[in-house]
Amino acid sequence: MRQFIILGHDVPTTAEFSLSDVAGGAGRLDVLCRCINAGLFLSHGIREEVRIHLVLDDEYTVRFDGSTAKRLYPDERAVASRIQGALEAKADAIGHQPAEVSPGVELYRMDFESTLAAVASDATVVELHEDGEPLAEASTPENPVFVLSDHHDFTDEEAEALAATADRRLRVGPEILHADHTISVVHNWLDTAGYQSY
Amino acid sequence: MRQFIILGHDVPTTAEFSLSDVAGGAGRLDVLCRCINAGLFLSHGIREEVRIHLVLDDEYTVRFDGSTAKRLYPDERAVASRIQGALEAKADAIGHQPAEVSPGVELYRMDFESTLAAVASDATVVELHEDGEPLAEASTPENPVFVLSDHHDFTDEEAEALAATADRRLRVGPEILHADHTISVVHNWLDTAGYQSY
Repeated sequence: MRQFIILGHDVPTTAEFSLSDVAGGAGRLDVLCRCINAGLFLSHGIREEVRIHLVLDDEYTVRFDGSTAKRLYPDERAVASRIQGALEAKADAIGHQPAEVSPGVELYRMDFESTLAAVASDATVVELHEDGEPLAEASTPENPVFVLSDHHDFTDEEAEALAATADRRLRVGPEILHADHTISVVHNWLDTAGYQSY
Repeated sequence: MRQFIILGHDVPTTAEFSLSDVAGGAGRLDVLCRCINAGLFLSHGIREEVRIHLVLDDEYTVRFDGSTAKRLYPDERAVASRIQGALEAKADAIGHQPAEVSPGVELYRMDFESTLAAVASDATVVELHEDGEPLAEASTPENPVFVLSDHHDFTDEEAEALAATADRRLRVGPEILHADHTISVVHNWLDTAGYQSY
């Protein structure tokens, strides 16, 4: 399985936002929506062995699971609508029990460190870092989880938690890319390397 | 310079579409908007040496130029709004004289073959094809132009025109990707290869 954790720092934690203003009033939720797009979609299908965890303002985590997602469309508005639906159900997320809000989409009352710890237990945590090993020279990790941030850098606390948990440190390229573009590159790297651990 | 030509087969050629329905009523214009995003944006800036040509229903071509683009935002709605603005000015595009509609955005009354011929004169035309040379093994082309289609395959006519003009045939990966994801992969390939012909 390939997993991605994306940190949204300004995004809503309530459903009261307009689907016509995801890039403004919804705190650059558009970035997270494009990460779902880049992470889950192939040209004519869904990447079934992918999970994406969107951490909303270090309070909730919305999980998209490619193996069970249904009627998911790739445009920003459609993905934002699914996230809005998840937030409408947040009262049903109690402790670490998720609210299941639509096929393949669950909402957890979990912050970044809890989500990272839960995912890391059976995955190879990859930190993407400018001092990391270049992708082209690196071996492909088994069951990788890549941790990415939205349009903001990681906070010091987030960076420390990630560095303390990371098993590998990789570098995508000489340019600093948007999170969703990074996901496209990483998928292609794993595809091309004939990654078959799932 | 790096260029991309993207063919939109169902998209509007008039400005009468809703920015709240770009993935539906606007004929999957969302795909083309994401191609602008993937083609032009770095994490904290614009790729200045990139031009993207969106061919709308084989009738008009909207050109986005990274070197002159201003106040361009990466979300689908914002890009769709720029395309809508271009279509509002289409009466000003006469012959091969474009309508300049906002900084870095021009609309030409040109179909795919005219656009391809104009771009090809001083570029390396790259056809992405499953029988092509894998990116990882290929040398990087000078001044490449990559030709991509939206959610539809190329028509027979388009495929023939492209094959007749192409200088190189490359393969991105074992999986068939969305056009915007392909652009992210191609940019990273050129970035990583230290592509410096511009």
